[in-house]
Amino acid sequence: MAEARIPLPSIRRFPSYLRILMQSREMGVKNISATQLASELGLTSIQVRKDLASSGIEGKPKIGFSVEELIVAITHSLGWDNSTEALIVGAGNLGSAIAAYNGFSAYGLKIVAVFDKDPRKIGTRIGGLEVLPVDTINQYIKSNRVTIAVIAVPANQAQATADMLVKCGIRGIWNFAPKNLKVPEDVVMQRTDLAASFAVLSVMLRRKYREETECNEENDVF
Amino acid sequence: MAEARIPLPSIRRFPSYLRILMQSREMGVKNISATQLASELGLTSIQVRKDLASSGIEGKPKIGFSVEELIVAITHSLGWDNSTEALIVGAGNLGSAIAAYNGFSAYGLKIVAVFDKDPRKIGTRIGGLEVLPVDTINQYIKSNRVTIAVIAVPANQAQATADMLVKCGIRGIWNFAPKNLKVPEDVVMQRTDLAASFAVLSVMLRRKYREETECNEENDVF
Repeated sequence: MAEARIPLPSIRRFPSYLRILMQSREMGVKNISATQLASELGLTSIQVRKDLASSGIEGKPKIGFSVEELIVAITHSLGWDNSTEALIVGAGNLGSAIAAYNGFSAYGLKIVAVFDKDPRKIGTRIGGLEVLPVDTINQYIKSNRVTIAVIAVPANQAQATADMLVKCGIRGIWNFAPKNLKVPEDVVMQRTDLAASFAVLSVMLRRKYREETECNEENDVF
Repeated sequence: MAEARIPLPSIRRFPSYLRILMQSREMGVKNISATQLASELGLTSIQVRKDLASSGIEGKPKIGFSVEELIVAITHSLGWDNSTEALIVGAGNLGSAIAAYNGFSAYGLKIVAVFDKDPRKIGTRIGGLEVLPVDTINQYIKSNRVTIAVIAVPANQAQATADMLVKCGIRGIWNFAPKNLKVPEDVVMQRTDLAASFAVLSVMLRRKYREETECNEENDVF
């Protein structure tokens, strides 16, 4: 039960720890300090110690944390020790990229099928998978007991796609469509909103420029 | 200066408001209430009113907000009324998807060039753009005054890429590589970390399942 209490901000950082720990293990490093991890990730070492404590692993004074123990504990906390199968709806640019992206397998995410409704896409191959007709998705989900789906369809088809997936038994949805979707309470929804990220980048960049311009103007006065 | 004080969480929600407002405008809707927006986005109407107030637009009792005024104000707050040019480094699956993704143009983001170091990719076309050799990037940035770059290279090349971009004068970096990057303080960095998103989805899904199993077990006792 302990892991149910790990706060989501720590969960979000776990993959970054995992990445560094795996790189360290590859290089033959046995132990690592909270300070080293903090410096790699631009965090405070207090934050790192809190995050790692929530995984159940304790560091030893002057030795640090066992790289191997941390990898096992964090992987387990994330549930990434058991590979999770997911399917993708939408074989457009984004869906194809996700299907072909080889970065997910390290996180226990296995894309097992890609669906589309466009007859020109059905039968083509993406990342080793054949694009299947979307009207066979119910049967696929039932036969293969897939519980996670990635939505990569255009915004105006996203809600209908989510409704259909929930009806077919999907329990976790990762939504890349630029649209807020409504799902029943017992379905977990994660959204990756590229527009929101770009909004923050644009605004931060303009604020920085303006600050600098204002500083320069002030300097001109003196 | 008012917009400098708009909090980032509001900024993150602005593109979602914009999306609904633009759809409403297409359908000929002139005015919209905070309650309608809240219901579309799954937010409280108090939150919506706060967010919209920060854009400088006030609603009128019984009429609501002018759709057109809100579109103009939000677009301006985001700086999306002037198209921003960006280049992409990395013409792999993710870089290609971003280059070809037609959803960005609505947000004033124009991808103007794609760079890669792989000779097999150079000269091919992605989303209407020719892939250029990465060793010409300095000249390109200087000649075209591009200030934003998207990093879509493998993790082990990401820091070197960021260093190179900063040296060439890039001021805003959107990092899709699964790696935490260090940049000087005057450079704005936005990260889209797909692994972190999937971490949250996996953990939330496992917690839901477990809660239900536990509930069922409790029910069995009675």
